[in-house]
Amino acid sequence: MKKTDLHELRKDPLLGRWVAVLSRSKAPSEYILPSDEDIEHDCILCTGRENETPSEIMSVPRLNTDQTKRGWWTRVIPNINPVFQVEGDLGRRGEGMYDKMNSVGANEVIIESPDHSARPEDMGLDQMARVITTYRDRMSDLEKDARLRYTLIYKNSGKEAGAVFSHPVSHIASTPVIPKRVKEELDGAKQYFSYKERCIFCDIVREELRIGNRVIIETRNFVVFCPYASKFPFESWIVPKRHNCAFQDIKADEIEDLALILSSLLKKMRAAFNGLSYNYFIHSAPNRIPRKNHWHTLGEDFHWHLEIMPRLLRTSGFEWGSGFYILPTSPENAAKYLREV
Amino acid sequence: MKKTDLHELRKDPLLGRWVAVLSRSKAPSEYILPSDEDIEHDCILCTGRENETPSEIMSVPRLNTDQTKRGWWTRVIPNINPVFQVEGDLGRRGEGMYDKMNSVGANEVIIESPDHSARPEDMGLDQMARVITTYRDRMSDLEKDARLRYTLIYKNSGKEAGAVFSHPVSHIASTPVIPKRVKEELDGAKQYFSYKERCIFCDIVREELRIGNRVIIETRNFVVFCPYASKFPFESWIVPKRHNCAFQDIKADEIEDLALILSSLLKKMRAAFNGLSYNYFIHSAPNRIPRKNHWHTLGEDFHWHLEIMPRLLRTSGFEWGSGFYILPTSPENAAKYLREV
Repeated sequence: MKKTDLHELRKDPLLGRWVAVLSRSKAPSEYILPSDEDIEHDCILCTGRENETPSEIMSVPRLNTDQTKRGWWTRVIPNINPVFQVEGDLGRRGEGMYDKMNSVGANEVIIESPDHSARPEDMGLDQMARVITTYRDRMSDLEKDARLRYTLIYKNSGKEAGAVFSHPVSHIASTPVIPKRVKEELDGAKQYFSYKERCIFCDIVREELRIGNRVIIETRNFVVFCPYASKFPFESWIVPKRHNCAFQDIKADEIEDLALILSSLLKKMRAAFNGLSYNYFIHSAPNRIPRKNHWHTLGEDFHWHLEIMPRLLRTSGFEWGSGFYILPTSPENAAKYLREV
Repeated sequence: MKKTDLHELRKDPLLGRWVAVLSRSKAPSEYILPSDEDIEHDCILCTGRENETPSEIMSVPRLNTDQTKRGWWTRVIPNINPVFQVEGDLGRRGEGMYDKMNSVGANEVIIESPDHSARPEDMGLDQMARVITTYRDRMSDLEKDARLRYTLIYKNSGKEAGAVFSHPVSHIASTPVIPKRVKEELDGAKQYFSYKERCIFCDIVREELRIGNRVIIETRNFVVFCPYASKFPFESWIVPKRHNCAFQDIKADEIEDLALILSSLLKKMRAAFNGLSYNYFIHSAPNRIPRKNHWHTLGEDFHWHLEIMPRLLRTSGFEWGSGFYILPTSPENAAKYLREV
């Protein structure tokens, strides 16, 4: 793609939702229907092929006993076909009755291991902690870009979850607008705070620990539970006990603890469902620079967390038409299965 | 399922979204991962097996030349495992810090043809008009139930779209709350109306006809176009030119015209994508009885329409975490392909 070939962001006039329209349109024949899809085999993310990827943004070096570098533990590279492009300005403008802007932002790939077939839950706690540290470092760095309003870190594991690499990776998308789903959470949390003068996530953590029947694992710093009214069966949220709106402010002992709880949860999910596809993502406060939204000068009403969504069901016209979801397993039973597995 | 075994509706405290929690929880081993799924073969929806279905709610009879009944053209039956159950009251109540109610409502299956392998686009216009008439009649009937706030009619075609029957069917879900996705449309349309004093859908229809490059088909009463900022590539909306908030107020000549435009669009989609899965659903105003929301005493700010979503892409952690969507084909190019196919 040429640099002049800018993708576009467009705003839905009815819902206020933004979409990215790619500059080179795919023809119908270029779509591979999901059922025919194949995951790539020739992998340039593996160790030894570093020259074939776009130039590295950062890496966690792997040192020899004499402290000389002999490879990497994790590595971050730009996406080869970024939807959100690093260069240029926002160029907000109208188009007839509609609104659009340039698709400025960042799209990065976090390579979680040099080992092509490593599964996150089998990597060991040290490696999982390095992955989480890499997440934190990229978020801290990206929030310095004043054009960017939000950074989402997410993972797609398995074909049903939209994975395109078989090498273990996570993704970063930094966008010039606060995405709708995040905005809804921020608004919901703010509304609760203004009524109760308490953080809704702190209240949920207390309530879940008090009741206990939706809790899967509790550690010193975190609790993982199946939310009372989740979208999908077996959906689980990892929430830190310490109130903190920004994931990048996570402390060293919390990183270790998160590595443990995430690894345990993924092991449990795999034990319950062989061949499971899943997504997870971190919801954190929007970038604090620019400090335009008054709420995060406070940071009192939001609380970062990680949501894991097993992809057990296909969505139908009901979910897309209504935004209503059906849970064939209650959160209480899902938590019980995952506790006991 | 026993009648006493009530499903529950639960409200997400953060997003205000409702979910249905089924009373008998599925164990992990009962989930068939989507990739292993098989569509049913032994079909009780076929003609001649009427005794094996739950008792018929209505049908469009097929008459002999001497006006005696010799079968049916379309048939509506209750869902065998309804998520929303006809009997009982709402029973709104709290549960700790959370909110819930009983899963009261209606779940019906509209059998679109006696012919198991009929494809909607090949049924012919008369049969398509009968299906649309059946939609209208069910909506008119269901809005008389004062407990129900919304009726969604939707179709799942193909495994990727969540279809569980291979017989051509549509579905009806009537819910005791206005679903979140619908509420967002109503709110967006209302906000636009209060600013412009015009219906946003009427404005969109005028704008799309003026520009023309996103229009696929125009008939006397309808226009179908690819929306400026749709969620999915090749998503198309059929919008009536006449301002009318409630689908069930559709006129006879509009039914004929809708049969034509829907049938043509589905043929075009099939020609562009062999083996395509898709969903469609009708967005109409909430039930007018009870008339609690002041806005539909006016009915000026909403405008019913039908949305068709081809399921070409799998959603990933990006879409679920952000509510942001990516269009690999621009709506202008998608409309061009579908116009010319």
